[in-house]
Amino acid sequence: MTTKKSGGLAEVIAGQTAISTVGKTGKGLTYRGYSIHDLAEYGTFEETAYLLIRGKLPDAGELAAYKRKLAAGRTIPPGLRTLLECLPASSHPMDVLRTGLSALASFEPETEATDPRELADRLLAISPSVLLYWHHFHQSGDRIDTETESDSVAGHFLELLHRRPPAELHERVMDVSLILYAEHEYNASTFAARVTASTLSDFYSAVTTGIGTLRGPLHGGANEAAMELIGRYENPEQAEAGVMRLLGGKKLVMGFGHRVYTVSDPRSDIIKALSRTLSEQNGDWRLFTVSERIEEVMRREKGLFPNLDFYSASAYTLMQIPVSFFTPVFVFSRISGWAAHIIEQRESNRLIRPSAEYTGPEPLPWFRLEDRGQGAVTP
Amino acid sequence: MTTKKSGGLAEVIAGQTAISTVGKTGKGLTYRGYSIHDLAEYGTFEETAYLLIRGKLPDAGELAAYKRKLAAGRTIPPGLRTLLECLPASSHPMDVLRTGLSALASFEPETEATDPRELADRLLAISPSVLLYWHHFHQSGDRIDTETESDSVAGHFLELLHRRPPAELHERVMDVSLILYAEHEYNASTFAARVTASTLSDFYSAVTTGIGTLRGPLHGGANEAAMELIGRYENPEQAEAGVMRLLGGKKLVMGFGHRVYTVSDPRSDIIKALSRTLSEQNGDWRLFTVSERIEEVMRREKGLFPNLDFYSASAYTLMQIPVSFFTPVFVFSRISGWAAHIIEQRESNRLIRPSAEYTGPEPLPWFRLEDRGQGAVTP
Ligand SMILES: CC(C)(COP(=O)(O)OP(=O)(O)OC[C@H]1O[C@@H](n2cnc3c(N)ncnc32)[C@H](O)[C@@H]1OP(=O)(O)O)[C@@H](O)C(=O)NCCC(=O)NCCS
Ligand SMILES: CC(C)(COP(=O)(O)OP(=O)(O)OC[C@H]1O[C@@H](n2cnc3c(N)ncnc32)[C@H](O)[C@@H]1OP(=O)(O)O)[C@@H](O)C(=O)NCCC(=O)NCCS
Repeated sequence: MTTKKSGGLAEVIAGQTAISTVGKTGKGLTYRGYSIHDLAEYGTFEETAYLLIRGKLPDAGELAAYKRKLAAGRTIPPGLRTLLECLPASSHPMDVLRTGLSALASFEPETEATDPRELADRLLAISPSVLLYWHHFHQSGDRIDTETESDSVAGHFLELLHRRPPAELHERVMDVSLILYAEHEYNASTFAARVTASTLSDFYSAVTTGIGTLRGPLHGGANEAAMELIGRYENPEQAEAGVMRLLGGKKLVMGFGHRVYTVSDPRSDIIKALSRTLSEQNGDWRLFTVSERIEEVMRREKGLFPNLDFYSASAYTLMQIPVSFFTPVFVFSRISGWAAHIIEQRESNRLIRPSAEYTGPEPLPWFRLEDRGQGAVTP
Repeated sequence: MTTKKSGGLAEVIAGQTAISTVGKTGKGLTYRGYSIHDLAEYGTFEETAYLLIRGKLPDAGELAAYKRKLAAGRTIPPGLRTLLECLPASSHPMDVLRTGLSALASFEPETEATDPRELADRLLAISPSVLLYWHHFHQSGDRIDTETESDSVAGHFLELLHRRPPAELHERVMDVSLILYAEHEYNASTFAARVTASTLSDFYSAVTTGIGTLRGPLHGGANEAAMELIGRYENPEQAEAGVMRLLGGKKLVMGFGHRVYTVSDPRSDIIKALSRTLSEQNGDWRLFTVSERIEEVMRREKGLFPNLDFYSASAYTLMQIPVSFFTPVFVFSRISGWAAHIIEQRESNRLIRPSAEYTGPEPLPWFRLEDRGQGAVTP
């Protein structure tokens, strides 16, 4: 651990998991054994969340009941609504989610009697409501009703956002996007949530950790950073020149690369295809062609491939989702993965507490306040 | 990593640090080279926080300026006061701190221009105000003034809590306690905060992670759990019988043991001596003699020693601090250590993202909803 390159716990096995496979030879990305390709093609986000949190796919009756339960969990307690109104209009949406879900703990605390699976469902169900209640209150002064007729998380979110039922294609794209974002082994936010859970802290604390960790641009924040980049360019030529300049300046291009994947991200092709379909439908190819050129340049110049965040950026923009909501959407989905990992951590817990290599000063003698002068105390 | 015992990153070096030494042979516990014994005997918490956050001991002028700065940072923005009033009286005080400091991000966001050291000072200064504003509002309806005449964090906290200036002894005990709690290398909450920081997320997110992780009874929550235990017994005989029963039932006794220390916790003797002094002054030896007996039994039966949390419990109770504020006091202090680590992490950052050993099902074929029956989908 003496150089930057060997840091970051890269290649360190920090524990076990039965939830998903990332980069395991011959396995591809699976959630509890099911391929991400099957889930994205034939499944729905609700089946995925049920699978992650409860360990098996629901049958038709279970799925219907689960959808009803999630729909019933969309209501915000009145005290939390008032609290959300106190958060300034200028708040970062990820701050709103972090504070909002942290605060829910005060209204609906976890107790010995709480089933963590039920709590996971509640957090999954309420999180779009929390963000959009705050959003509309500050946009228009409206205290929106956070109930909708939609029976899916994807549809509910889009309807709350745009205040009209979404187009069928948009609902399906959002649903697939939520499936793809739901779970990814010991990624930083999930791992951090497991560290929180390992002290036997409560469920809300662990989820709050997940939100705060996801936010960074090296992790979930990359979808917003990618859009910021793509949005700069009018056409592929400009994009090529711009990215070449960034690489020349040794800058990171967000939405590329991965700690575990070395050749490609199996989720990227799926979201790329959907971004293409949306471009076609909108009759607007600017974002897509700019994105493809950036992909080409990154492959050619750095051997790097787009990760899930890159084509999610154009897809979301083509569905009129504001950029600052991209990472929150990731939260709406990843709560299911965090929940599965928090529960798994609790099932065979040991405190996660590593050691560090010490690189600081040797033991120093004490200096009385009056003897401390220029340089006297700096080793 | 296949057994419980080898989990939890025990003995794994997760990175470097120049901030403190825990369990390094021949070094004892030092903060930036200074022995915890010297700091506790000759220093103050403000010097300790300055040392941790700024890397050197302040001289007389710097210390005076630093105390003035911390005193100026005790004010809560009006919007945050209103928000704290929305958190129910039944909230867990750690939830109040986690939500309160998370929410501060909306009022005073970190920007490119923010000096993280200044933000650390702000969080250090405001945290007792946040807890006690909420507390008194719900206890008595008073919207307290969170300014006091005290020039120390210890005095300020005790004065806000009891609404009168503290006894000199109490202020000194609290000051030492804050020094002892300030920093402890890659403990779980600090490590979790570093994982959050490693995605390049903001400072508030990392501190929120720290609070949520500290809360668990295997970590900071142990001081409350220890008091709950000690408080059960009228006398040493009862305590001995009670603890023997717990051990017989393979229960953990909170406040004992440590991941890194194997023989003793160097901080324990210091807080134990202060707990003894407080008992003497109060003329009430019950808690102390019960605690000593528990220590004796744990050493005899399990070879385990008290950690910092154990005698902190009686010391705090002897100063009339409510049990549910014990872990929050740990937060007031540990913010300084978290801040130092967040800053250090940023200075040579690499994403902290380990891998996991997969123990789940082999790849499964997809089952259509109508084909899922009893057992059909459970591998
Ligand atoms: C994901 C990520 C954090 C993985 O980090 P990591 O495993 O520590 O990778 P490293 O930093 O060791 O990268 C290896 C090399 O590729 C370069 N690299 C990696 N991702 C890059 C990117 N997106 N743009 C430019 N260069 C990149 C690094 O600079 C490094 O180059 P060097 O060897 O010359 O120093 C990293 O790829 C990254 O920062 N990507 C951009 C953020 C992003 O999209 N995150 C979402 C992940 S799903
Ligand atoms: C601090 C702590 C989490 C360290 O955990 P760890 O390094 O994973 O230690 P282990 O769980 O491997 O403990 C080793 C053995 O001692 C036992 N042990 C450790 N602490 C114990 C305690 N406080 N009471 C009873 N038994 C204890 C364990 O049960 C284990 O026994 P086993 O080998 O028969 O299974 C652990 O000592 C603990 O839970 N202490 C109580 C909580 C506490 O005070 N936390 C504050 C720490 S500053």
